[in-house]
Amino acid sequence: MTPNVPSPGLPLSSRIPPHEVPAIIATAHALAEAARKATLPYFRSDGLTSDNKAAGGFDPVTAADRAAEAAMRAVLAERRPDDGVLGEEEEATAGTSGYTWVLDPIDGTRAFISGAPTWGVLIALCDAEGPVYGIIDQPYIGERFEGGLDRARLTGPRGGRVLSVAPSLSLADATLFTTFPEVGTPEDRRGFEAVRDAVRLTRYGMDCYAYALLAAGQIDLVIEAGLHPYDICAPIAVIEAAGGIVTDWRGNPAHGGGRVLAASSPALHAEARALLQGAVGG
Amino acid sequence: MTPNVPSPGLPLSSRIPPHEVPAIIATAHALAEAARKATLPYFRSDGLTSDNKAAGGFDPVTAADRAAEAAMRAVLAERRPDDGVLGEEEEATAGTSGYTWVLDPIDGTRAFISGAPTWGVLIALCDAEGPVYGIIDQPYIGERFEGGLDRARLTGPRGGRVLSVAPSLSLADATLFTTFPEVGTPEDRRGFEAVRDAVRLTRYGMDCYAYALLAAGQIDLVIEAGLHPYDICAPIAVIEAAGGIVTDWRGNPAHGGGRVLAASSPALHAEARALLQGAVGG
Repeated sequence: MTPNVPSPGLPLSSRIPPHEVPAIIATAHALAEAARKATLPYFRSDGLTSDNKAAGGFDPVTAADRAAEAAMRAVLAERRPDDGVLGEEEEATAGTSGYTWVLDPIDGTRAFISGAPTWGVLIALCDAEGPVYGIIDQPYIGERFEGGLDRARLTGPRGGRVLSVAPSLSLADATLFTTFPEVGTPEDRRGFEAVRDAVRLTRYGMDCYAYALLAAGQIDLVIEAGLHPYDICAPIAVIEAAGGIVTDWRGNPAHGGGRVLAASSPALHAEARALLQGAVGG
Repeated sequence: MTPNVPSPGLPLSSRIPPHEVPAIIATAHALAEAARKATLPYFRSDGLTSDNKAAGGFDPVTAADRAAEAAMRAVLAERRPDDGVLGEEEEATAGTSGYTWVLDPIDGTRAFISGAPTWGVLIALCDAEGPVYGIIDQPYIGERFEGGLDRARLTGPRGGRVLSVAPSLSLADATLFTTFPEVGTPEDRRGFEAVRDAVRLTRYGMDCYAYALLAAGQIDLVIEAGLHPYDICAPIAVIEAAGGIVTDWRGNPAHGGGRVLAASSPALHAEARALLQGAVGG
């Protein structure tokens, strides 16, 4: 294994004192419940409003987005007043505990306004080194993917199961997901297309749900660019807990956002990384 | 309205004698239930097998696909022995009643093998003129979109509601879906891209679920090419019942498959059709 690839199955739990674990997990689930309650009344409702946040671009932010972050911040103010909060919608707030909750109330706002049930609520607990525990929640389907602190579980409409990545296979047999065919900048796109041309099947349009499918052993690779920390911290925790690897395109930690490569195995990760680096420069 | 665009809200129900309607609707739901039972044990199961049906291409057919069509044919043999059956997996069987059930046991096999809940079971009843009634069923989410015979309804995890397309808007404000960025042949792709470049938002990867979202008023346009009759008969019935329009790219009936344009309004349909015809020749 190359030294700058985080080891899969890293004992994240050792970074949290055991007596703190139950309260952290209970809080994370309370956050997910609060976000479900805040988002669902808006999903597929008539007259869903969206602002144009990015000048010149199409980046809708719905009332649901803001309501869900406010609801989650209220839970944290009550249960974890000493933790920091980094969310998509409001100013970051510093904490004193050394822990930060990283929240994306609706990842996949374009899916949300299109009525597609592939958006998600992303909730991560990070320490100074990065994500320790995360949830990817899909409120409409009623699915919750969680990972970290010795857990890797899906609960959904068909019951519960352990999350575990797929067995290792070669790039030529792999299934790759990304959200948009454009991916990001022209250079980002070149990198993505180098891998796309080498895999068996490429699919688009899933946002955070693609990371959940990787953790569930359904797909093998996710490649994205231009991410924010709140887009990727929860997926990192869930995928690593399920036995996968998430880094940037150079093999460095990805929890700061930017270009992300998630893979089901170290061998597949190395194959994809070599193509990405060949296309965009190491 | 141009003469070769089918009128939305066509009184399809007048083509079926009223006393036959309850048995047809009950049969359609029994088919959907049988397909749910047959497909769900395979969805996200370990060791899902897929064959390579198209030489040189990637067109997986799962055991679930075959099991679901067999289960639906058994229901029809029992309840509707005089009707014809056209399915994806087995030989078509002729009937004597004048009615044909058009079945796609799993539309979106690539979504299915990727674990994405955007595949569907498609069930349509057709007479000599085309689809009269249809169901788009998503077994994992537990959602059923039905339309025709004076019905246009969604039942799902959040209860039931009437299906109705979105209010008419201009192409520049529309949301467009298709399954693959490649769409079909290079000529098909040129047509698609002419519309893509004129709309507000384009999304990929939904298969039949995109038609369901159009009927539910969530999106405005779906453009595809290279379809088979079993891919499109059920969506036609559901979308027309919800007030939308589905034709081929020239404005002719689409139930034979090929190039499909589905729109929420006649005005939007005409705008998109003009661009498609301009790009590929009228």
